Amino acid sequence: MSTQAVALKKYALEDFTPGREFELGPYPVSADEIIEFASEFDPQPMHLDEEAGKASILGGLSASGWHICAMMMRMLIDGYILDSTSQGAPGVEYCNWKRPVLAGDTLHGKSTVLSSRSLKSRPGIGAVEFSHELFNQRGELVCTSANTGFFASRDKGERK
Amino acid sequence: MSTQAVALKKYALEDFTPGREFELGPYPVSADEIIEFASEFDPQPMHLDEEAGKASILGGLSASGWHICAMMMRMLIDGYILDSTSQGAPGVEYCNWKRPVLAGDTLHGKSTVLSSRSLKSRPGIGAVEFSHELFNQRGELVCTSANTGFFASRDKGERK
Repeated sequence: MSTQAVALKKYALEDFTPGREFELGPYPVSADEIIEFASEFDPQPMHLDEEAGKASILGGLSASGWHICAMMMRMLIDGYILDSTSQGAPGVEYCNWKRPVLAGDTLHGKSTVLSSRSLKSRPGIGAVEFSHELFNQRGELVCTSANTGFFASRDKGERK
Repeated sequence: MSTQAVALKKYALEDFTPGREFELGPYPVSADEIIEFASEFDPQPMHLDEEAGKASILGGLSASGWHICAMMMRMLIDGYILDSTSQGAPGVEYCNWKRPVLAGDTLHGKSTVLSSRSLKSRPGIGAVEFSHELFNQRGELVCTSANTGFFASRDKGERK
C-alpha cells in the first residue's frame, strides 16, 4: 500500500491499540433479507418460513448463523475497515451463535482490539487481533467472534 | 423431532461415525455472485472489481472470506445436512482462508466426522464434530474449517 493511500485512511496499524473499541451497527434484520440469504446458502425450513421457524427451537423466522456472520462483516466494514489500511484477514478464530436472530430484530455491537504486532515477514504490515460482540435491540448477546486482520502501518520508516 | 420425521431422513446421529467422509460440491463461483455478495456484506475493492482484484495481493476478482463460508454452508446443506436430522449448530470452531477464491473457480471438498457424543442435557440429541476442507479445480486447498452440529438420534430408546 502506497504512503499516499495510507494517508487517505482514517485508521492505520498504529490506531488499533489494545483495548480500543469500535461501535458496530445498527443493522435492522428484515424477513426478506433472512429468506434471500437462506434461499441461496442455507435453505433450512426455520430460515425460510415463519411457521417453520415458530415450530423450531429458534422460535421464529431466524437468520442463518452464516448470515449473522455476513451481517457482522458489513458492520465491521462500515464501522472501521473500509476507512482503514486493511490488508485482509487469514480467517476466523471462532464464532459462537448465542441466541436466535429473528426477523424484525436490530443488531448492534462492538469490536475490541485484543493485541497488535508488526510482522517481521511483511515489513510495514501488522496483525491486529479483535473480539466482536453483537447484541439485539433488547441488549441480549447474540453472537461472539474473534479474528485477526492485517493492516498497513502509517509509519513510513516501517514500510520498505 | 418426531420419530416419523427422523425416519424420513437419510442421516441421523448414528450415521455420523468418526472418520466418515462426505463429498462436497462442485460449486462454480461466478463473478456476478462474488460481486453480489460483496456489495451487500463486504464491499472492499478486490471483491467488487476485476482490476482492483488484480492490483491486490489476491490476484483477481476474489470472493469475500465470508462468502467462501456461505458457499461452504451451501455445499454442506446439499451434501448431507438437508437430508439429516440436523438440529442446528452453536457456532464455528475456526475457519482459515488459505488461498484466494477467484471468479471462474469451481470448488469442491469434503467433511470428515471427528467425533460424536450423546448429550445428557438433551435426550435423543447428539453433538457431532466435523472438519471441512475446500479445494479449487486445481486441487489447491482454499479453506479449512471445523464446527459442531446437533443431530437427532434414530434410536427411539434415546428419545424421551
